[in-house]
Amino acid sequence: MKRETILTGDRPTGCLHLGHYIGSLASRVRLQHSCDQYVMIADTQALTDNFKTPEKVRENVVEVALDYLAVGIDPDKTVIFIQSLLPQLAELTMYYLNLVTWNRLKHNPTVKLEIKQKAFGENIPAGFMTYPVSQAADITAFKATLVPVGEDQKPMIEQTNEIVRHFNRLYNTEVLVECRAEIPEMARLPGIDGQAKMGKSLNNAIYLGDPEDILKKKVKQMYTDPNHLKVEDPGKVEGNPVFIYLDAFGEDVQKIAELKDHYRRGGLGDSVVKNYLFEELNKFLTPIRERRVAFSKDKGEVLRLLMEGTRKAYAKAEETLQEVKKVMHLDYKF
Amino acid sequence: MKRETILTGDRPTGCLHLGHYIGSLASRVRLQHSCDQYVMIADTQALTDNFKTPEKVRENVVEVALDYLAVGIDPDKTVIFIQSLLPQLAELTMYYLNLVTWNRLKHNPTVKLEIKQKAFGENIPAGFMTYPVSQAADITAFKATLVPVGEDQKPMIEQTNEIVRHFNRLYNTEVLVECRAEIPEMARLPGIDGQAKMGKSLNNAIYLGDPEDILKKKVKQMYTDPNHLKVEDPGKVEGNPVFIYLDAFGEDVQKIAELKDHYRRGGLGDSVVKNYLFEELNKFLTPIRERRVAFSKDKGEVLRLLMEGTRKAYAKAEETLQEVKKVMHLDYKF
Repeated sequence: MKRETILTGDRPTGCLHLGHYIGSLASRVRLQHSCDQYVMIADTQALTDNFKTPEKVRENVVEVALDYLAVGIDPDKTVIFIQSLLPQLAELTMYYLNLVTWNRLKHNPTVKLEIKQKAFGENIPAGFMTYPVSQAADITAFKATLVPVGEDQKPMIEQTNEIVRHFNRLYNTEVLVECRAEIPEMARLPGIDGQAKMGKSLNNAIYLGDPEDILKKKVKQMYTDPNHLKVEDPGKVEGNPVFIYLDAFGEDVQKIAELKDHYRRGGLGDSVVKNYLFEELNKFLTPIRERRVAFSKDKGEVLRLLMEGTRKAYAKAEETLQEVKKVMHLDYKF
Repeated sequence: MKRETILTGDRPTGCLHLGHYIGSLASRVRLQHSCDQYVMIADTQALTDNFKTPEKVRENVVEVALDYLAVGIDPDKTVIFIQSLLPQLAELTMYYLNLVTWNRLKHNPTVKLEIKQKAFGENIPAGFMTYPVSQAADITAFKATLVPVGEDQKPMIEQTNEIVRHFNRLYNTEVLVECRAEIPEMARLPGIDGQAKMGKSLNNAIYLGDPEDILKKKVKQMYTDPNHLKVEDPGKVEGNPVFIYLDAFGEDVQKIAELKDHYRRGGLGDSVVKNYLFEELNKFLTPIRERRVAFSKDKGEVLRLLMEGTRKAYAKAEETLQEVKKVMHLDYKF
């Protein structure tokens, strides 16, 4: 079987949290052994709706890199790079923009949904409307075959493959490669407030770098079963964030099963389960937190690692761009 | 007074004709002595509506360059370059796309008019809708202060200046420079068929490279005053292409004035005036044609000159891009 090439990444708009770990980081750590993996810190894309605060995007580039290194994404196995340093991605975007109609962009379901969420009103930045085309550039520059995305992002992959097919047909080539979406089994971790999604802007996240005391406080204030008022009341386990987190991060499956039974029967207080969850989460997060602190002592070294990855990504993207320009009769000897 | 910087250029979709000479080439030859002049062969822009035939765009890059050299645009005084070789222009476009709303693009008067003319129907390429933003990238990359455009292109200059002001305000900088439109006095030469505009697609053009026999044929079939049926009839001079061409290219102002009087009185046949126009045009075109033939004998040398210009343009665009990236906090040491 052919080795898969993965393109994935994050917008540097904040530190990464447990939701990111479950949704993507865990699988990256696993897949880096068997796949060619490119992880993009998507600063250019982040700017499409954060162009007023570029300094925050810049700060978060390093924060996100620290999170990557802390969870065990290994720069020797995974190419970690900064999007804005690759002009090839902008060039490919320009060529692909000719292959997508204005109407098609307007009707992209993911973009339509995000526009509502972001409340741009009448002032939708053109860069935001065209970002699916930039994503196609990101994916195809590395000839990625596998792109891990949430269910809601599937239309983006379809848009990319449409561009690939259109390009290859138009220029009678096989230079570009179609990809498939990899939907993670457990895409979403609820927030500590019980909302379906953990998110920075929702203020309901446990960050990978949270110190022990913050972690303890956040677990303590977690939403559980709102009808479990007294210790002796029977409680609900399904949809209860505390148990969802235990399932995701607890190590002792047997003990978790027993706790669930006890909680359902009644007689098990939330604080007992939360204390146990805190211990389990702290056991999981301690080595991550320690590595994060260690790496953050030398941010120059983190940047050096990023530049090394970016150089590898640059070379690959340049190779693809030259192939693209060749079939488009743009291959000047310059 | 500060030396002006000019950005101008042509889409390489065909050879250049007398209309181009009057509308822009003549002033370029003149201004190259007193201004910093960048002349762009806009292949990327040409692809926004010629992406199905990139090989034609490629061929015409050299044809347009030959026309430039033939009329006397001097590569030692003017930077002639190929747009697609400057990734900086694509990168700037990406950043500027965030500063322009989707609605603003939709309502650009120039683009609206061109969309009607090109009959895209429902299939307007996104790259065509966004090309005013790319133009802003082209202009600002060179910090051009003067952009020669036709009256109908003035909204493009306004769009550029809006981006400049928005960018400078947002990032608290003066990196980008506003430009002003230079509308040529005689922007348009009518076609040989009497239509208001000379154009390749209208099949009514006299090309700079047309050989003598073709020139003679084209002048012979020129549209004149449709009511001037017999030699003795009085004829109309105003709006008569033959006299418009004489005014534009004839050298003997006195003689042209006499011919006009005679034509108005009656007794002067079209063929006499046309023979004179042919002689005058041929006198004007002969040295251009000869230089064109001479340069076209060594297309490798033409490409070498283009690459030399492109390297100069690359350096200038890179300088601006780095300034832009610096104020956007994207200035990594890479």
